[in-house]
Amino acid sequence: MTSEPSAPLPAGAVIGILGGGQLGRMLALAAHRLGLRAHIYAPERDAPAFDVTPLKTVARYDDMVALAKFSEAVAAITWEFENVPAEVAEVHGIARKLRGSSAVVGVAQDRVLEKRFIESCGLAVAPWQAIDSLDDLKISLAAVGSPAVLKTRRLGYDGKGQWLVREGDDLRSVFNGLKGAPAVLESFVAFEREVSVILARGANGATAAFDVTENIHENHILRRSTVPARVSPAVAAAAVEAARDIAERIDYVGVLGVEFFVTGDAERPLLVNEIAPRVHNSGHWTEAAAVTSQFSNHIRAVAGWPLGDPTRFADAEMVNLLGDEVLKASSLQGVSLHLYGKSEVRPGRKMGHTIRLSPLTR
Amino acid sequence: MTSEPSAPLPAGAVIGILGGGQLGRMLALAAHRLGLRAHIYAPERDAPAFDVTPLKTVARYDDMVALAKFSEAVAAITWEFENVPAEVAEVHGIARKLRGSSAVVGVAQDRVLEKRFIESCGLAVAPWQAIDSLDDLKISLAAVGSPAVLKTRRLGYDGKGQWLVREGDDLRSVFNGLKGAPAVLESFVAFEREVSVILARGANGATAAFDVTENIHENHILRRSTVPARVSPAVAAAAVEAARDIAERIDYVGVLGVEFFVTGDAERPLLVNEIAPRVHNSGHWTEAAAVTSQFSNHIRAVAGWPLGDPTRFADAEMVNLLGDEVLKASSLQGVSLHLYGKSEVRPGRKMGHTIRLSPLTR
Repeated sequence: MTSEPSAPLPAGAVIGILGGGQLGRMLALAAHRLGLRAHIYAPERDAPAFDVTPLKTVARYDDMVALAKFSEAVAAITWEFENVPAEVAEVHGIARKLRGSSAVVGVAQDRVLEKRFIESCGLAVAPWQAIDSLDDLKISLAAVGSPAVLKTRRLGYDGKGQWLVREGDDLRSVFNGLKGAPAVLESFVAFEREVSVILARGANGATAAFDVTENIHENHILRRSTVPARVSPAVAAAAVEAARDIAERIDYVGVLGVEFFVTGDAERPLLVNEIAPRVHNSGHWTEAAAVTSQFSNHIRAVAGWPLGDPTRFADAEMVNLLGDEVLKASSLQGVSLHLYGKSEVRPGRKMGHTIRLSPLTR
Repeated sequence: MTSEPSAPLPAGAVIGILGGGQLGRMLALAAHRLGLRAHIYAPERDAPAFDVTPLKTVARYDDMVALAKFSEAVAAITWEFENVPAEVAEVHGIARKLRGSSAVVGVAQDRVLEKRFIESCGLAVAPWQAIDSLDDLKISLAAVGSPAVLKTRRLGYDGKGQWLVREGDDLRSVFNGLKGAPAVLESFVAFEREVSVILARGANGATAAFDVTENIHENHILRRSTVPARVSPAVAAAAVEAARDIAERIDYVGVLGVEFFVTGDAERPLLVNEIAPRVHNSGHWTEAAAVTSQFSNHIRAVAGWPLGDPTRFADAEMVNLLGDEVLKASSLQGVSLHLYGKSEVRPGRKMGHTIRLSPLTR
């Protein structure tokens, strides 16, 4: 599963996309803008991405027959999320079409593997401990310090599967909340700010980083991303370098998002929070303020094309539209608007985003 | 056929688009970005726009049954070209869904009606005469002066149906080249430069103009558009005002392109060359350098939404990729790339475009 060298895909080639949410949808739109076609594979009949391309497969991710047919119908395969079942790579003929890196997918799916991997790259993470028992939890809370954050090892996103834990809490009840899922306890970092790097790496090994972005989460969901981030040039350069190290270590092809905590500690100014081996919500501003968007660069990498120019031409603030905020979206003034076409409005659901541009400051 | 007041279309509503070329394709992509769906109607089985949406009708523009079904399947209808047959508006139930203005479509299809209409708005055009006979041609050449440009009244685009005529030419042979088509003879304008205004007008009558763009044609095909145009603020303001006058006069809804010759004559600094009641090639830069693109604003107008902000955040140069120039497109550096997914490469055919951004100068 990987970057085996292959000729650049020609005009009209079909990019296969696993996942039919807003990221899959935006990847399909980016493929179309490059004269390529997009085939969406997703289990939900009403996946938003199905509305933007004539090519689709409605099937489960463990449907080996459907996956094999999908693989035959497309020239290259990518995904919108990191939870691609490892078995996918076993499907006949699929391996040589998958782009990205099996390593990073396996790793990004599991917080323990992810932290070990990051540490193996010589990068810092917040103090953490794997949690498999109530005793682990008790001992670890003392070790990493209170407060701490308990997270399931797998399948968590947007704050799902996360609990803040403090000394004196009823640890038994907290542990039972895991319902047997393996977990990890992380020290709660009193960070100055959160930033992320969106980096593209091409099939030829070239990389292109977008400017470092500053992120604000609310209720564990990304609310707002602004660029440029309020960090020193040295910290920004270190963050980009860390993202590049990660991408090179696993010979990754495509766009990768790396989230950091900026600590204010001169010795360890950055802690890696999470790696997302895919296009990332904090990179959405690139579609309005950069020469090439993160989606275009991901598709270019997957298609074996040279990467596009990530230069930014405006300052930007991206705000997610959550739940019923989408209802007034069409009348928002002064912003670039992107809606995901989701039919059902649910509280906290990502329904779209706005990008406010302002003159370039640096 | 028109701007009858109607409620803003909701998320997921289907925009019907007559025409399946690159403009129809870009309109569909813009609809998708706004969470709307797009249904393409075109006669060609392999129309490029069919590749970017699951909803399509393959049928001729005079197929009244197919048009009626199309009309029932969509919430509003727009087009990518001005040659929509007038009969379309007669199809049962279609009139209340068509957005734009029947007036401008009829007018923009016929160079004589177009010039009369422009003059009726109090705007200047180059000296011209209608040509229906060889005698007309002889007399008119003396009247408008040599050299002059002979153009068919209808169905001309990208220089098709145009001939440069000079005193001393064999006028009989030139006239026979028309094969009986009604024509118009225009004075050849020794212009300083060509500019265009891309203006959006909403269903509520509000307008939003993009910055005036300077255009260079080669072989009658748009080659390059740059913004800002090298014109004085007064000339730029007059051009925008003229475009607004035209849009208001016909109660137009959507995006309109107006091409001008800049004459250098202080008395009549601008001559209107052509009106295009649709998104326009010279407005393609807006997708990379403005808060809202011409395509988004056209769809917003058609959907009855408030217009988006046309503010520009970079200087830009759009270059069309013609014919086999597309073959090296993926390796072009430093530009925003848009390819149309056309399978057949023909000399002079518009295959895509690039947009080069540079820091805002004004």
